[in-house]
Amino acid sequence: MHIVQPGMEIDVLKENGKIAAENYRLMKSRGIKSVDFMGSIGAGKTALIIKLAEKLKARGVRVCAIAGDVTGADDYGRFSRAGLEAVNCNTGHECHLDANLVRKTLSKMDLDAYDVIFIENVGNLVCPADFPLGTDYRVVVVSTTEGDDMVRKHHDIFLHSDIAILNKIDIADAVDVNPEVILEDYKRLTGGNKKMITCSVKKETGLDEILSALKL
Amino acid sequence: MHIVQPGMEIDVLKENGKIAAENYRLMKSRGIKSVDFMGSIGAGKTALIIKLAEKLKARGVRVCAIAGDVTGADDYGRFSRAGLEAVNCNTGHECHLDANLVRKTLSKMDLDAYDVIFIENVGNLVCPADFPLGTDYRVVVVSTTEGDDMVRKHHDIFLHSDIAILNKIDIADAVDVNPEVILEDYKRLTGGNKKMITCSVKKETGLDEILSALKL
Repeated sequence: MHIVQPGMEIDVLKENGKIAAENYRLMKSRGIKSVDFMGSIGAGKTALIIKLAEKLKARGVRVCAIAGDVTGADDYGRFSRAGLEAVNCNTGHECHLDANLVRKTLSKMDLDAYDVIFIENVGNLVCPADFPLGTDYRVVVVSTTEGDDMVRKHHDIFLHSDIAILNKIDIADAVDVNPEVILEDYKRLTGGNKKMITCSVKKETGLDEILSALKL
Repeated sequence: MHIVQPGMEIDVLKENGKIAAENYRLMKSRGIKSVDFMGSIGAGKTALIIKLAEKLKARGVRVCAIAGDVTGADDYGRFSRAGLEAVNCNTGHECHLDANLVRKTLSKMDLDAYDVIFIENVGNLVCPADFPLGTDYRVVVVSTTEGDDMVRKHHDIFLHSDIAILNKIDIADAVDVNPEVILEDYKRLTGGNKKMITCSVKKETGLDEILSALKL
């Protein structure tokens, strides 16, 4: 994040944390489970959310997606065309969602109509890390197409996430990336106890493991 | 960028602009041409810089790269292993380089030893847009693997760049992306006068067009 002057950052993060806690309590009071999906543009967050929602809907779970982007309604459109209920949330200029933007979006939704809310954060592997939104889980999604160095370059987002997902595992060879390097880096960064989940949204592999990690 | 409170953003950007102008004058006084390469993680900035530098070195041009990353020295290592002189520049936490970080890095370099400085910004398609570094050119590099919606989602970085490059054009089919959509979006956003350059660093296509656009 942009540190503007000493002390200022702490205030912003403290205020965000306060509102995130309110969001959490609000969603809990309606029995909603929620997930924040973070990751770079092209990591496959939108497609992943669509596939996970399809699986949940087949079981009778009512899902809604919040599509976070700087500008435009591309992801909102993709959700809608896939038959997933969705709400668009543009930041205007900001490089990440924050708890206040999510609070405003939640206030426009009929929360009694959903069991699960999937929030797709702005495509950015750096800044969303600093801003919890009040969800049950924070998930970081990366793709083999991003190279094998994303864990080494971006500690924060991996350390601030509950679950890490490596997508597009099916084209790792085509983009000359060895997934083992990424999985090992993640294991080392997180102290050896956590395992990154590999998946291919396109080939529909790894999705059940993700739902199980999310306790859904 | 993170807007912290009204007015504060303007001060930060103004201060950055002042130092960027100093960086520009410093490099000009030594006859150095400089380029800021921005784009998401995995767009191919490092590989592109290596290839462009090889072509320039073959012509006797002396090139140095500044490797900008939040943490680690991955890109610095890649530059060095490729035989390109390089300096590492970690932001520590920040999601983008700023003019002050570049000024500090320049102060550690022997500027009389180079004709061209390529700066690789932090892998991030949002935040670097706000922070000019004082280079001759600002270039945004995107990849077909990022999907076809990056221009529609991230106006700022395309509007703040002099040159836009679409990399990994050779695997567009494999990742189900139609490059024409991206090229059209860019043309429309920039008023119809500017053309995004397509390239494949891996297949070494489009590189001469990029050097020519950079007047190198």
